[in-house]
Amino acid sequence: MTGADNQQERATARGWVVGFIDGEGTFSISLHRNATMTLGWQVFPEFVVTQGAKSLHVLEDLQEFFSCGNIFVNRRHDNHRENIYRYCVRRRKDLCEIIVPFFLTNPLKTSKVDDFKKFVQVLELMRERQHLEREGLEEIAGIVETMNRGKPSRLLQSSETIRQTSRLRRG
Amino acid sequence: MTGADNQQERATARGWVVGFIDGEGTFSISLHRNATMTLGWQVFPEFVVTQGAKSLHVLEDLQEFFSCGNIFVNRRHDNHRENIYRYCVRRRKDLCEIIVPFFLTNPLKTSKVDDFKKFVQVLELMRERQHLEREGLEEIAGIVETMNRGKPSRLLQSSETIRQTSRLRRG
Repeated sequence: MTGADNQQERATARGWVVGFIDGEGTFSISLHRNATMTLGWQVFPEFVVTQGAKSLHVLEDLQEFFSCGNIFVNRRHDNHRENIYRYCVRRRKDLCEIIVPFFLTNPLKTSKVDDFKKFVQVLELMRERQHLEREGLEEIAGIVETMNRGKPSRLLQSSETIRQTSRLRRG
Repeated sequence: MTGADNQQERATARGWVVGFIDGEGTFSISLHRNATMTLGWQVFPEFVVTQGAKSLHVLEDLQEFFSCGNIFVNRRHDNHRENIYRYCVRRRKDLCEIIVPFFLTNPLKTSKVDDFKKFVQVLELMRERQHLEREGLEEIAGIVETMNRGKPSRLLQSSETIRQTSRLRRG
């Protein structure tokens, strides 16, 4: 294979990843109750792609492509004929040094780019340790409320809940 | 831009289309009741991509990329915050001469490739005019029953229904 062919193949592979994530990827920030955290909430950023068992190999390809992340199986059988697999990148270092730079260099085309931008914004606030302050946490909760509007997260808690909780703790 | 850059850009664009269709595309064959057809059923092959209003531009890009198909708006507001748009290629000539050859040259990676293969098989049967014969129609209905298992089509009718209808007509 010539160098040009090789470059073209890599370009096709990058294009495929962007297109597939435009369709199937989720840039998710969720807020979990966690009593061990100072403010009682943990901010949980995650890059996720979900597929049925028949397309598990595609998640393995993504894991190899990004050289990070894990694949989990979800064995719920309600309404599903096959197990569901989730490719997840949760490690903050991997998100900041691999996933985010890739999608900054190879931009998403659908409106999912809006979620990606908010995801980057929250990671930046976390880098500045603002998620450990009440005001920063409220700002993050406000951003989270506007994300993934099509698919409400079970784990998502409103910033109003956090404000109320914060008030209770202060009161 | 050099020729190599240009080639690389086209490779990226092709890769994106395959990845996005792996996520969001549907190769659909539906059977519609149609009294004007000899057997009372019309076979309706369609390549579809659906997006919310915020990503309408992506459907326009696909339409330009393939130089065929139409975009329809679905104004249902139940459970949707935005209108839903469908990019559809329905013209048999466009399916056979543009869509199918593209995905034969640039293969899908997910299990959606199975639906694509069945889609090609049905188009081939239609090219041979077999959908106008009872046996051919039953064969198509049998194929259709195994397609798009994740997303049952409202329009899909079982081959059992067709067999019953055929029996009634013959009886």
